[in-house]
Parts: sequence; structure tokens; C-alpha cells
Amino acid sequence: MENAALLQSEFSRIGEFFEPYLESVIPGEGLEQQVVADAMRYSLLSGGKRIRPFLLLTCYRLAGGEEREALPLAAALEMIHAYSLIHDDLPCMDNDDFRRGRPTNHKVYGEAMAVLAGDGLLTHAFETAVKAPIQPERLLSAIRELAQAAGLYGMLGGQSIDVESEKKQFLLTETQMRQMYAMKTGALLKGACRIAFAAAGVSGKPLEAVTIYAQELGLTFQIVDDLLDRIGSFEELGKPIGSDAKNEKTTFATLHSIEECRELARRHTENAVAACAALPDSKVLKALAWYLLERRK
Amino acid sequence: MENAALLQSEFSRIGEFFEPYLESVIPGEGLEQQVVADAMRYSLLSGGKRIRPFLLLTCYRLAGGEEREALPLAAALEMIHAYSLIHDDLPCMDNDDFRRGRPTNHKVYGEAMAVLAGDGLLTHAFETAVKAPIQPERLLSAIRELAQAAGLYGMLGGQSIDVESEKKQFLLTETQMRQMYAMKTGALLKGACRIAFAAAGVSGKPLEAVTIYAQELGLTFQIVDDLLDRIGSFEELGKPIGSDAKNEKTTFATLHSIEECRELARRHTENAVAACAALPDSKVLKALAWYLLERRK
Repeated sequence: MENAALLQSEFSRIGEFFEPYLESVIPGEGLEQQVVADAMRYSLLSGGKRIRPFLLLTCYRLAGGEEREALPLAAALEMIHAYSLIHDDLPCMDNDDFRRGRPTNHKVYGEAMAVLAGDGLLTHAFETAVKAPIQPERLLSAIRELAQAAGLYGMLGGQSIDVESEKKQFLLTETQMRQMYAMKTGALLKGACRIAFAAAGVSGKPLEAVTIYAQELGLTFQIVDDLLDRIGSFEELGKPIGSDAKNEKTTFATLHSIEECRELARRHTENAVAACAALPDSKVLKALAWYLLERRK
Repeated sequence: MENAALLQSEFSRIGEFFEPYLESVIPGEGLEQQVVADAMRYSLLSGGKRIRPFLLLTCYRLAGGEEREALPLAAALEMIHAYSLIHDDLPCMDNDDFRRGRPTNHKVYGEAMAVLAGDGLLTHAFETAVKAPIQPERLLSAIRELAQAAGLYGMLGGQSIDVESEKKQFLLTETQMRQMYAMKTGALLKGACRIAFAAAGVSGKPLEAVTIYAQELGLTFQIVDDLLDRIGSFEELGKPIGSDAKNEKTTFATLHSIEECRELARRHTENAVAACAALPDSKVLKALAWYLLERRK
């Protein structure tokens, strides 16, 4: 399959310089405060799919930039993703014991250190982002996108709606669920694209197109996530399945049949691909959209 | 007392525009995710002493800037301070029920929401800071100082040393305790001054002087904090005293007698005041140093 081969080669190419960079952003030894640094590294370097930094670097290149300049921004976004997973897994939140086939952060380092590791990654994201060798005005606007994607009007806000609805045990309507997801998981994917475009100084029509692309991609991503929680396997996912049902969450897979979910995901993927028409050199973005539709983990 | 009067009038003058600004940075109503916004506001607007933003705005003015330009940075620093208190108070950390005379965040909003409120304030700090109407290069360097003060090599690192030593129940040596405090409480005070100078584009000798001032101020602040935990009262502090002893923490007040602590605090205050010699118009900074030595809460 042509798409899969192209994507595989791009993931490898980017991984070759992104992974060593990510490995370098937090010292592996020698600090008085080494324990929290280790806890931060444990979750950051646990082999995630790296979809957000991949998307960011791909968009930065597509927008005319030189990928390596955006490495600090890509690492920052991955740190924010990693922090959110650590805090999501805490006993007072989802209380999950496994993530990516390994014990969750608090299972290894204890709850207090896991809180700090999350806080540390969130702070280190900004400490790293400001170092990008990008023109100050553009870099500031990229950092603004980063903070917005992560914050009250983005991921954090979505997470809070999720926690509230669970606590009060009310089911969300389709509209509410979509809004929650647009923030909770969509914002960082949209952020990846918008950070890249801001850093490259690109606005107008292409920015609008890539924003729509990312929103549609985020919906596909989430629908597949919900499906996998229902029909995936521990071996493939590296975490227990059925946790949404256990926690009585409203998801695409509780509001729709498996067949409907597949159809919905396909439609959002087609929308994402269609949005690429307004973007130059968007082969990789299209390939990513098809890949996220087909993923099994 | 002249110092006290000057300081009082400056705190009032700055409070008059800082408090309304702080009140405005997080919406009080109308959001789908209002609960987390309310939890953020609960701790941010609970009447802290505002020493960090006061110090930042005073330094920005002293360095030649127009105070109002630095409001987003001052609010950002206070948000980082507020987030750290919320997370410090969590059951898995210090497990405190009262702060500033009111129930702690998790007592009101629950643990999950308190974790999110802290995360939200930390993220919102950066989302707010990027909005400051300051020349991009200077603003970036101010944000770098902000992130460093809060992060792995600053407050967060110090907090992690504290948590570790408590967990393993070993007492710190005086040197280790001082290093821990320099990070845990010193970094944000030093950050206040350095953020202001970076934003105003001032480096060299004055930056060195204000850095020393802030470090000495931080030590006084901490010694008095430790003393108050031993000899203060609930009514004055708004939280239970004796929590350091309860948690078997190493503090200035466990390593030294009350008399020695008073003497140490006085010496560091004198050092702070001496460092002001290299700064123009440093009356307010000196007054602040004397005030922090004498404070009862």
C-alpha cells in the first residue's frame, strides 16, 4: 500500500532526529532532583506513537520551514501530551495501572512524584519551546498556539468536562461529547498544525485548510480510539480495554454501533483529505489521515 | 515607621490595578468548562500577599518600564504560585485542609478537579504571559525566565527534593536544605526580579545585583516561614501551624534555635539591602526586605 509505505518512511526519517532530540531535553543523570527528572523521562520516552510532533514537523516543512528549527516546539507538544497522560492515569482521575504496556507513572514513582512529573513536563514544554531558533515574533505566536491548545479552552477544558460528567454520572449528548473531544483530544492535534504554521509565519487560507484538516483528523482519531477500547486487545493497545464502559463514559462507541462508528470515521477521514486540496505538498498529511483510520493501536 | 508606610502605599497603588487585572484573566461565568475555571479562580483570587507580582512590577518600573505592560507577566507568576499551592496541598502531597483561612482547593472541588485546576493555572500562566505588550525578543527572554523559575531547575525541582526526602524520611543537611529552599521558594522570587529585568531589556551589573537581592530576600522569607510554622498562630496564618514538625521536615527552625533563626533572617535581610546599592531607586525593594523580616503571616 503506497500510503503506508510513504508514511512509514517519513516516520522513520523524522524519528531518526526527533527521538535523540527528545532523549536530550531532560538530563538522564547527575541532578540533585534526579528522581523527578527520571519520572518525567519514564513517561516521555516510553515509545508513544509521536503523532503530534510528527504532524507538527510535517506541517512546518510543508509551510516552508526547515524541520530542525521546529524540534523544540515538537518536543514541547509531546511533553504536554505526556504530562496529560500521567495526570489522567492518577488514582483520583482514571486510576489506570497500565499505559503503553508498562505500569503507569504513579505505579512506579508514587502519586506525589507522578503529580510533580506531570507538572514538570508541562513546565519543561515551555522552557524548551522558547529555545527554538525561530524569529521571535513567530516563535511567540507559536507558543501562544501551544498554550491555547493545552489550556482552559483546549485540552484542559475538555478534560474538565469529562471529569465533571463522570462525577455527576450524566451521559453527554452527541453535541456535548463532540465538543468535549474537540477540546480534550482535538486541540493538541489542531495545535500541532497551527503551531507549525505560526512558527513558519503562514496564515490565511492555508491556515484555515490545515485547521479543518486537523479537526477532522482529531475526530477520526477519537472515534477509532473509542472503537479500540471496545473491540481492541490488551496486547495491541498496551492497556486494558473496556475502561470506557467500566467508567460509564459517553463515547462514540456508546452512542453508535460499531458499523456506524466505522462509517463516521471514514467520513471524517475523507473530509480531512479533502481539506488538503488547499495545501501544497500534502501527500504525507493525507497518508497520515488514512493511517489513523486503519490503526489497530 | 517610614518603610512600612511606603510599602503600604505601594502595595495599595499596585493592588488597585493588579487585582482587577488578575480578576479578569479567567472568566467567572459562561463557560462549558466553568467548574475548572471556578476552581482556578478559587485559589488565584483567595487573597494571597501578592509578593511575587508586586516584586515583578516594582522591578520592571525600576528597570525603566511602564508597569502596566508587565501585568500579564505579573499575573502569570502569581498563577504559577497559586498552582503550586494547590498541588502541594493535595492528599498525596502535604494533605492540608486549610490555606489562607479557607478550605484547600481539593476540599472544595475534589481531588481530580484540584489536579486540573493546578494544571490549568500553570498553562494559563503562559497563555497570559505571551499577551504582554512587550517587544518580542524581550518578552521571549522574560518567558524563558518564567519557565526556568517554575521548572526542573527551579521551584519544581526543589519541591521534588522535598518530597523525596520526606518519603525516605532522611533529614537534610543545612547545605541540602538551603539548596532545596533556593529552588522551592527562592526561584519564584528570583524569577520575579529577573523576569522584570529581562522584559525591560536590562542585563549586566544591575541584573546581578537584583539577583543577589532576590536570593537573600528568598532566604529571609523562608526562615521567617519556618519560624512562623513553629511559633505563629492559626488566626494569623490562616492554616494550622506545626505542620513541618508533623511531617518531620528539615527546616531552618528544626536545625536552629528560634534566636539563631531570627539572627540569620536579619543577616540575610541586611545582605539584600546591601545589594540594592547597585540599583537605582531601590527604596521600595529595601522596604520590602525589612517588611518580610518582620511579617507575622
